[in-house]
Amino acid sequence: MSNTTTQFSPGILSMLPLFYVGWSDSVLSPSEMKLIHKKIDAADFLSKEDKAYLIQWSNPKNIPTDEVFRSWVKALKEYSVDFDLIDKKSIAKIGAEIAQASIQYKQDQIWKSPKTIDALEDIEKALGLKNQASLKILKRSLGSEEDLGDENSFDPTALRKILDGERVATKDRMRKLLRDPAFAYRDIRDKDEYRLDILWKTKLLAEQGVGGYAFPTEYGGGGMSGDHIAVFETLAYHDLSLTIKFGVQFGLFGGAVYMLGTEKHHKLYIEPLTKAELLGCFAMTETGHGSNVRGLETTATYDHNTKSIVIQSPNLAAGKEYIGNAMHSSMAAVFAQLIVDGKSHGVHAILVPIRDADGNILPGVTVKDCGYKLGLNGVDNGRLWFDRVTVPVDNLLNKYGDIDTDGKYNSSIDNPNKRFFTMLGALVAGRVCVGLAGLSATKSALTIAIRYALERRQFETGDNGPEQLLLDYPTHQKRLIPRLAKTYAYSFAMSQLAEDYVKADEGQIRKIETKAAGLKAMATWHTTDTIQECREACGGKGYLAENRISFLKADSDIFTTFEGDNTVLMQLVAKGLLTEFKQSFHEEGTTAVIKYLRSRIMNTVAEYNPIYKRMTSVDHLMDRDFHNHALRYREKKILLSISNRMQKYLKRRIKPSEAFLKVQVHMMDLAKAYIERLAYKEFVNKIDSIEDGEEKNILIKLSQLFALTVIEEDKGWFLEADYMEGVKTKAIRRMISKLCQELRYEAHGLVDAFGIPDELLGAKVVM
Amino acid sequence: MSNTTTQFSPGILSMLPLFYVGWSDSVLSPSEMKLIHKKIDAADFLSKEDKAYLIQWSNPKNIPTDEVFRSWVKALKEYSVDFDLIDKKSIAKIGAEIAQASIQYKQDQIWKSPKTIDALEDIEKALGLKNQASLKILKRSLGSEEDLGDENSFDPTALRKILDGERVATKDRMRKLLRDPAFAYRDIRDKDEYRLDILWKTKLLAEQGVGGYAFPTEYGGGGMSGDHIAVFETLAYHDLSLTIKFGVQFGLFGGAVYMLGTEKHHKLYIEPLTKAELLGCFAMTETGHGSNVRGLETTATYDHNTKSIVIQSPNLAAGKEYIGNAMHSSMAAVFAQLIVDGKSHGVHAILVPIRDADGNILPGVTVKDCGYKLGLNGVDNGRLWFDRVTVPVDNLLNKYGDIDTDGKYNSSIDNPNKRFFTMLGALVAGRVCVGLAGLSATKSALTIAIRYALERRQFETGDNGPEQLLLDYPTHQKRLIPRLAKTYAYSFAMSQLAEDYVKADEGQIRKIETKAAGLKAMATWHTTDTIQECREACGGKGYLAENRISFLKADSDIFTTFEGDNTVLMQLVAKGLLTEFKQSFHEEGTTAVIKYLRSRIMNTVAEYNPIYKRMTSVDHLMDRDFHNHALRYREKKILLSISNRMQKYLKRRIKPSEAFLKVQVHMMDLAKAYIERLAYKEFVNKIDSIEDGEEKNILIKLSQLFALTVIEEDKGWFLEADYMEGVKTKAIRRMISKLCQELRYEAHGLVDAFGIPDELLGAKVVM
Repeated sequence: MSNTTTQFSPGILSMLPLFYVGWSDSVLSPSEMKLIHKKIDAADFLSKEDKAYLIQWSNPKNIPTDEVFRSWVKALKEYSVDFDLIDKKSIAKIGAEIAQASIQYKQDQIWKSPKTIDALEDIEKALGLKNQASLKILKRSLGSEEDLGDENSFDPTALRKILDGERVATKDRMRKLLRDPAFAYRDIRDKDEYRLDILWKTKLLAEQGVGGYAFPTEYGGGGMSGDHIAVFETLAYHDLSLTIKFGVQFGLFGGAVYMLGTEKHHKLYIEPLTKAELLGCFAMTETGHGSNVRGLETTATYDHNTKSIVIQSPNLAAGKEYIGNAMHSSMAAVFAQLIVDGKSHGVHAILVPIRDADGNILPGVTVKDCGYKLGLNGVDNGRLWFDRVTVPVDNLLNKYGDIDTDGKYNSSIDNPNKRFFTMLGALVAGRVCVGLAGLSATKSALTIAIRYALERRQFETGDNGPEQLLLDYPTHQKRLIPRLAKTYAYSFAMSQLAEDYVKADEGQIRKIETKAAGLKAMATWHTTDTIQECREACGGKGYLAENRISFLKADSDIFTTFEGDNTVLMQLVAKGLLTEFKQSFHEEGTTAVIKYLRSRIMNTVAEYNPIYKRMTSVDHLMDRDFHNHALRYREKKILLSISNRMQKYLKRRIKPSEAFLKVQVHMMDLAKAYIERLAYKEFVNKIDSIEDGEEKNILIKLSQLFALTVIEEDKGWFLEADYMEGVKTKAIRRMISKLCQELRYEAHGLVDAFGIPDELLGAKVVM
Repeated sequence: MSNTTTQFSPGILSMLPLFYVGWSDSVLSPSEMKLIHKKIDAADFLSKEDKAYLIQWSNPKNIPTDEVFRSWVKALKEYSVDFDLIDKKSIAKIGAEIAQASIQYKQDQIWKSPKTIDALEDIEKALGLKNQASLKILKRSLGSEEDLGDENSFDPTALRKILDGERVATKDRMRKLLRDPAFAYRDIRDKDEYRLDILWKTKLLAEQGVGGYAFPTEYGGGGMSGDHIAVFETLAYHDLSLTIKFGVQFGLFGGAVYMLGTEKHHKLYIEPLTKAELLGCFAMTETGHGSNVRGLETTATYDHNTKSIVIQSPNLAAGKEYIGNAMHSSMAAVFAQLIVDGKSHGVHAILVPIRDADGNILPGVTVKDCGYKLGLNGVDNGRLWFDRVTVPVDNLLNKYGDIDTDGKYNSSIDNPNKRFFTMLGALVAGRVCVGLAGLSATKSALTIAIRYALERRQFETGDNGPEQLLLDYPTHQKRLIPRLAKTYAYSFAMSQLAEDYVKADEGQIRKIETKAAGLKAMATWHTTDTIQECREACGGKGYLAENRISFLKADSDIFTTFEGDNTVLMQLVAKGLLTEFKQSFHEEGTTAVIKYLRSRIMNTVAEYNPIYKRMTSVDHLMDRDFHNHALRYREKKILLSISNRMQKYLKRRIKPSEAFLKVQVHMMDLAKAYIERLAYKEFVNKIDSIEDGEEKNILIKLSQLFALTVIEEDKGWFLEADYMEGVKTKAIRRMISKLCQELRYEAHGLVDAFGIPDELLGAKVVM
């Protein structure tokens, strides 16, 4: 080491690893080069000659010749660094070590001084090279044959605990329970047989007491509705037919009895239903009225003489549709227009027995099997019609509307509209559950696809090495890794919503409903999109039943429709935002307020103008303030623009209903902008709540990728709105691909952290 | 009519219908208003007072008051126009008629003069109001209760003939044949039973002679491979399992024997295979080598002593994977590395018997069922392994490589690489077929979803009318109608490719391969995307087996993977374009050429600058020249940018394989830009080839929507590249929603024109 032949000074040597990776990693942008230029100028550990040399090669138009490049590699190789020890090191530190190794007077401490190392690391960070992927490039090129390995920078088990959150005990209990051989998958193709298998497993769950979490202990329940949601979420790692059957019995049917009924119903029904001795269904949707629940046609007419209610389906299209558990249930919670004394009081729920103890259909009830479906064939969906079916008045679930002993209708909520929404609001848990279940299915698909991509090789690299791993392809990274980041974001947001819901009082519930509607829609669209991508990313293997992605695809497909069609839900969210907006400025007159707000938003951007629009430094692009600002700006701007339009239309005497139609497509954009901003907010809130460490670091990286991804997906909007210029959106694209490249080495641990037991994953070993 | 009370002059009256619809239809953009301003100024049929009045109300900031607006409506209603007669009229003509009706001296001909009407129609067109939707607004608002009805502006049967093209006779024959009760759908869930049903139907097709179209008449074939493709395309309106089984037997296995074999094989095998007496499979893909066919590991070793070839699977992963027809076949065309005299000559196909006449597996052959799949469960996919299976040398399909009587290998193509690609090229029909089949499935899904959206009502409008039809919602239009336009575009492009392929000579085949790869990828991604959207657009109904979208979804899902994984195919396309680009300037030195080209591209845009970038007139946005220019510009610009990058990387001594990885994501963009441009080109070529008339007009409209849709989807790119400014991309978005609104009244006829018999559609009546 003493008889060195290199012509490079220690100063240059300290910078060479950065230069080497910088030049070979990708095309550094002019602004990145300008930055390095500046930093070199400022570095006091470099001599004037060092600086001149380095600046020469930091001009993007001046590409080092082959010869120069080879001289760098040679110089770097001369000072053997122990790569096994540097796994957690930075490129900057390697540079400093090489410089140190090259000097004669070892007592000289300049290359060990924290100040020098800090300065070098500052450059490393500014260039976006502070990551595993860059280290890997350096290590590979400098001749060390060993791999960095699949070791993640963080501990997947610790990350799993962060994901599981408050409900870790329940989730772990469920993981253990479902691994029991009794729950082993059976690929049954005949629907009736499959449904029996699922029914049997549902009863098994009830035996274990997990059906009772949502209900108070005095009725044999667990008293923890947050745990009920956690059970549902974890079940969704398993067969989704079982998940949905469970949800119908305990969540929908049980929820209706508990939330819409009163003590007399609780005493009678809660215990038997948590034990799955009483099987019930939730008969709301009608063939003729899917999303428009308020317009249901089934009638429930009160007869004061007999103190009974007569349930009637007035026509074929008023039949109850897609009713889960319809083929096994002995009771239905039927939603119908309640008519008392000839007057309709809107939709109420009534408990209607539909089968006797032997399973025979009761008189007046017609049940028809919905038959096979794209998926969820273990769930017995059916259609129900009622012809003069009479039940005692006590069967009315009477929490929000009752009939007194004089035969008069009364309700604590006078406004029928408000009453209707209060009843529906009591059932908001369904949307939270479906959103979480969608995300669980997404996690299963990503786990399968990422593990596959880390085993499966495709083409040779052309230099006689082995074929490349699928996940080494940038196109493959782009398919899976941003979707992984989104999955984390929506997971945290949805889990937070679940906790907020459990703890919410009545005043908060309306806001939670809006969030639940929007998050359910965005999370389940994300589910459909991601599982589809995972299917394709696994090629033919993804199509085979044995790898289970096909089940995930087929079973989860309906999530975008049920518990509220996503498009309809997004319209609701947007209407909610518009109403809030209007209300908050009711007195002052909207036009003035809009003008004021518009100027404020404009000013906010203008402050940074025009540098902000063209700012492409790594620091800025990764900065939370930038992400927050961009996402917030988009939401507010769209909101303003819709308000403006609506005003114009209304002035032009266009009917409100027609005016809403005209802005319908923009309302979708608004809802999307809101939910993406919300998801990001919840993600960073979560990050702020956890301790410093590698798990936090990896989550920060994922949150950055999430924000940049949603911004990039809508870059057309940001450019149109002149919020950014092309140079910035291009820099974002580059940053995303750098993050993907970097997270490629963390992907294995990031799916391990979902904590899905192999028995539940159910995929045959990939190859 | 004589005692008129209106204060309006005939001149104003002639313009009022346009003003009325203009103001109520949507927010007219400032540039549209400027235009109308100009036209009013120029109109010689308007008095000075008329002009002043009209210009007053053509200022976007000056919204007519409620009172003014009501006075317009009143004036318009005074002159009752016979709306039943104006179905095919324009708003301009209605204006002229009203003006005419208002004047005292009926002999005055100014309002009947073609010049006046032309001037009015000119304004109508410039405002983008010349369409059914605008007429509908006028008609509805002016009190005529009747509807314009579902009458289309064109004749769906005539349009169907244009779609069917040259193969109308074969397609009609297939439509008739498949409607036969023998082909009725049977929803069989057990795979073995389902496979037998499909096998039986395949034999039925063979009996009808449709399996022979691809082969010369001397071997009992039909001699028309174009008709073979048409059969496949039409079959794909039926059960896709049947389509694929048919394709494997006659297209892949039959195609291998015919295209890779020689006369001795044709004489022996073609006739029995077209009759489905000889069932065969196409054993190419291996578990360990999906997309990398060249790297297959199965060996075929020639033994000169016995004049035989020994087939060997060297390991488990070298087993043949996903082989369709594997469970029913008695013969396999096995692709293996041919080894003669110890030397490998690359991949060749050999006919290997795998079952005896009684269906018993032959010694050395192992067959394993692939089991259930996401869809296509009527196709018997299996895995195949060979252990020292010996066949006579005559079983080598020896068109491109043979072993002579001395045991020496010889081939007309010296270069093994070229030989390999020539063999694969002979099989390009498979990609054309899969692309077309995907489009057929897409058409089925769109037909079901659009018919559903025209029957299904969702919410009330709020003014006590019936609930709105789904297709009246702009969000719903946006989901279905641009996808309908894309389906037309890809259909015409794919059909043209099929005809080009059939007529191609060897010199043209390479270019057709590139197009086939790209169109197959884009068409099948479009299939997956559209069927998914149709499923969701039908809500719960779309999930039920009885409405068949679920089958279309599950069965077609693998189309993006088989006959070449789409991502891999798109890379091929991009590499092809890059190579072409490089070759065409080989001598002159690439850098100089790139510089030259770049300046040319820039100049082309600069010519129009800056007006072009901000041009938002209806005429311009609907103009073919604009579409062509935008699509071509994008493709060339991306191509240049990749070339630039590649050069830089290579200069920086990055290995070519690594450099390709670095631009991989951009290569996807390039291939996409190329294929979208190609599809548009073929669409307008088709339009130019047909006679003037309403069918041509509707196709022009669809082509405009297609072009604007693909431009809008990538508006981020166009804005980044500074090809357009925000004002233009926003105008495009408005134009798309106008076109959707307009085509909503044509959608019924546009799906009727696909000509899918109800029996094949197989959807239960929607409600």
